[in-house]
Amino acid sequence: MTKTALITGSTSGIGLAIAKNFAAKGYQIIFNGLEPDGDKIAGNIAQQFGIKHHFSPCNLLYPDQIEKMVKETLDKFSHVDVLINNAGIQFVSPVQDFPLEKWNAIININLTAAFIVTKALWPAMQQNKFGRIINISSAHGLVASEFKSAYVASKHGLIGFTKTIALEGAPYNITANAICPGYVHTPIVENQINDQMKVHNMTREEVIEKIMLSKQAIKEFIPVETIALTAAFLATEEAACITGTSIPVEGGWLAQ
Amino acid sequence: MTKTALITGSTSGIGLAIAKNFAAKGYQIIFNGLEPDGDKIAGNIAQQFGIKHHFSPCNLLYPDQIEKMVKETLDKFSHVDVLINNAGIQFVSPVQDFPLEKWNAIININLTAAFIVTKALWPAMQQNKFGRIINISSAHGLVASEFKSAYVASKHGLIGFTKTIALEGAPYNITANAICPGYVHTPIVENQINDQMKVHNMTREEVIEKIMLSKQAIKEFIPVETIALTAAFLATEEAACITGTSIPVEGGWLAQ
Amino acid sequence: MTKTALITGSTSGIGLAIAKNFAAKGYQIIFNGLEPDGDKIAGNIAQQFGIKHHFSPCNLLYPDQIEKMVKETLDKFSHVDVLINNAGIQFVSPVQDFPLEKWNAIININLTAAFIVTKALWPAMQQNKFGRIINISSAHGLVASEFKSAYVASKHGLIGFTKTIALEGAPYNITANAICPGYVHTPIVENQINDQMKVHNMTREEVIEKIMLSKQAIKEFIPVETIALTAAFLATEEAACITGTSIPVEGGWLAQ
Amino acid sequence: MTKTALITGSTSGIGLAIAKNFAAKGYQIIFNGLEPDGDKIAGNIAQQFGIKHHFSPCNLLYPDQIEKMVKETLDKFSHVDVLINNAGIQFVSPVQDFPLEKWNAIININLTAAFIVTKALWPAMQQNKFGRIINISSAHGLVASEFKSAYVASKHGLIGFTKTIALEGAPYNITANAICPGYVHTPIVENQINDQMKVHNMTREEVIEKIMLSKQAIKEFIPVETIALTAAFLATEEAACITGTSIPVEGGWLAQ
Repeated sequence: MTKTALITGSTSGIGLAIAKNFAAKGYQIIFNGLEPDGDKIAGNIAQQFGIKHHFSPCNLLYPDQIEKMVKETLDKFSHVDVLINNAGIQFVSPVQDFPLEKWNAIININLTAAFIVTKALWPAMQQNKFGRIINISSAHGLVASEFKSAYVASKHGLIGFTKTIALEGAPYNITANAICPGYVHTPIVENQINDQMKVHNMTREEVIEKIMLSKQAIKEFIPVETIALTAAFLATEEAACITGTSIPVEGGWLAQ
Repeated sequence: MTKTALITGSTSGIGLAIAKNFAAKGYQIIFNGLEPDGDKIAGNIAQQFGIKHHFSPCNLLYPDQIEKMVKETLDKFSHVDVLINNAGIQFVSPVQDFPLEKWNAIININLTAAFIVTKALWPAMQQNKFGRIINISSAHGLVASEFKSAYVASKHGLIGFTKTIALEGAPYNITANAICPGYVHTPIVENQINDQMKVHNMTREEVIEKIMLSKQAIKEFIPVETIALTAAFLATEEAACITGTSIPVEGGWLAQ
Repeated sequence: MTKTALITGSTSGIGLAIAKNFAAKGYQIIFNGLEPDGDKIAGNIAQQFGIKHHFSPCNLLYPDQIEKMVKETLDKFSHVDVLINNAGIQFVSPVQDFPLEKWNAIININLTAAFIVTKALWPAMQQNKFGRIINISSAHGLVASEFKSAYVASKHGLIGFTKTIALEGAPYNITANAICPGYVHTPIVENQINDQMKVHNMTREEVIEKIMLSKQAIKEFIPVETIALTAAFLATEEAACITGTSIPVEGGWLAQ
Repeated sequence: MTKTALITGSTSGIGLAIAKNFAAKGYQIIFNGLEPDGDKIAGNIAQQFGIKHHFSPCNLLYPDQIEKMVKETLDKFSHVDVLINNAGIQFVSPVQDFPLEKWNAIININLTAAFIVTKALWPAMQQNKFGRIINISSAHGLVASEFKSAYVASKHGLIGFTKTIALEGAPYNITANAICPGYVHTPIVENQINDQMKVHNMTREEVIEKIMLSKQAIKEFIPVETIALTAAFLATEEAACITGTSIPVEGGWLAQ
């Protein structure tokens, strides 16, 4: 039977790569993203792979928009098999200057939105005795870097949330896992490069080598395709006994 | 020189035990708590140990109240040497029924309040070249239990926050560490016993033995005094090189 | 180009499942195991999938036998692309009665043998700019159970070894990762059931439910095929940036 | 009642600092070490603090020497309250050149010796309903550095061993914890500086800043006194519920 995946933040970066991978496997996809041409991006992928899809321009900062996205989804597909909480934002600042509104936005989008979507899709997963929830956390879900207090807190929190729902889902064949990427070259990272250039007064090259990839043993950005392959693996029927885990995809960052 | 400690949630439970321990060592203490007689509780301890103190009935759910508490503190003591982010709330529910307002309250009090207080006290600590920030997380900051998605997320997030500010504080002799208690017999746990009795349809005894302490190797509640001793140890000058850690005080819960 | 995999302990249990999975993908395989009919088991798989193979009855307790296995391997295949250190033994006893010779045997087979094989195959991997080392550790590589001091120490040690060679291999496209299974129903676990029945004076059923799977959220033995799929995923070219990790495949054991 | 502590490797470095701290608290101490004047070092401390003591020149590489040390200890003191497995050796080499005999020596001294001493002292601890086992692991018990495969494996293994005996000791008031120091300026580190200068072709200064302390957030060697204070804290009656933990004392190494 055709499976359905809802992927937040899927019109760019990691989410887009996951969407392409899943579309190629024949999944029906609910796209989401804030890109002005998100609808077109989604439509093109759906057409390319001949899949049924839906696009929601929902801003995950607003619970009512999330509810609307979920309602549209359930109206169209009745349930979701795979939920990928991928959307995330970042802001870089010393803690003493970190604006509360930035903190709140990061916590709400990176962490609370995942809770809201999960909660809304849970009853159908439970009834359907199948669910694969994949939360895109970060190496920063397991360790920290300075000047990223909200991001690191939100990504650690997301791992805690993942473990909890893994336990709750165990009797219903609902698994929940986190993926912890290192530095992927996405728009969010491109912005970080610029931010860090200012914070550290460094050139672009210096930031990439000395700041960003300094913690990875492998001195290359993580390909988005590897994240997508990992998500696809976790989404399979066969991965039923893998749950509550945090899978690092980060070039040997956490090993040292 | 007399040191000053601000301890949130210090009119009951773990926070109160920490306050007594620090008062006995001669610290000046800023008490905080929602107990109706919090002012009296604080005053009695201050009198008993002959220390200077302040009490704030600030509700950590509200940023403006936190700002007020910090302003009063800095007006009276000019800076804080030791900050103990201890206040926390809990709510138990399957994820599909977990109210968003409960989720938000838990995240805001257990995690965001720690950020706001830290941010406000940071400049004086940095200037003073001394700071000891101790965040009372939980065994649930490192692993999960079902039906506690918000609490587990908030306590994991608090550990992420702790690591980040540990890195930022390293050049300034500001350390940040988390303590991860197991089950302490406090009012919050007393409420959990009642909640879990309903969720699992068990007697009080069954909940304590089979649910609460089932994960600890040592089948006894954690004494609040041990948490206080751990906090006191982390607050010393000599612990300057201990930072970014999460110290379990949990009867062998995480080892298995 | 046809890839070659050496899999220790591959004539039964997890190793056999991995061997079948890799044979089906066309890998040439060096089998190893102590089963009296190991040669036949290996030959049958090779024939079934039409692959070139070698079988070594090497006992990993003896470094000279390991050297011999590696020499035969390099003579026949010139290099190995994928090394899977899978062989392991177990012994259950309270620490005060744990025989030193059992401790040493477990450390030598579960940990030191992995070092010896890795060391011997490393130069060819480095020269070849490709290597995938997959160490079958255990949930007991990350947490403990009583009465298994040697096993838990060896499996934790194996994870430490994995991280180290991940860092050393980073410049050469050699990755090293550990897989941490929960309870797989293999001969080694069958023996544990018997051992635990004696230690705890329980029936077979009680041991399985109350002892073995008590720590997993999912109350089923881990299928060997899932371990094999995880190994196959880590062995791909595309997993080049996944290194130094410990992937739990354990039904939600470590999340709680 | 006067307590007794056996501290391996206590005639220099971390072990010596722990011995001094415990002697100052009035503990009777069994010293151990390979320094030619170890007997004199031990005697001087005993005299200075007026404590009863014993010195064993036991080489932990040899089980029969360990048995002899334990027998002498139990003959003289009947039981040991606090066991500190501190002795350790290091060797630095790429895995492909790492001599098997060096690997075995490191595993035997850093890991297996801790098992042998623990096993031998366990029955008396169990009968006495009191035991505090403190294993000096390392930041390298939780993460790796290249070229230290045996050391990292042994220190990870020691943490696994610690967790196991923590679980086994829980019913008997025997706790077991690991301390994970960062870079302490001891003779072993002095040797590492020299080794790393060769491996990396760097000056002494470069090795200290760029290699050794590069991973710590706090750019200072860890004072041995802080390790001693941590051990003393874990040894108290009041720390009864702290068990199975790994306490980092490492200047913010693991937080990033």
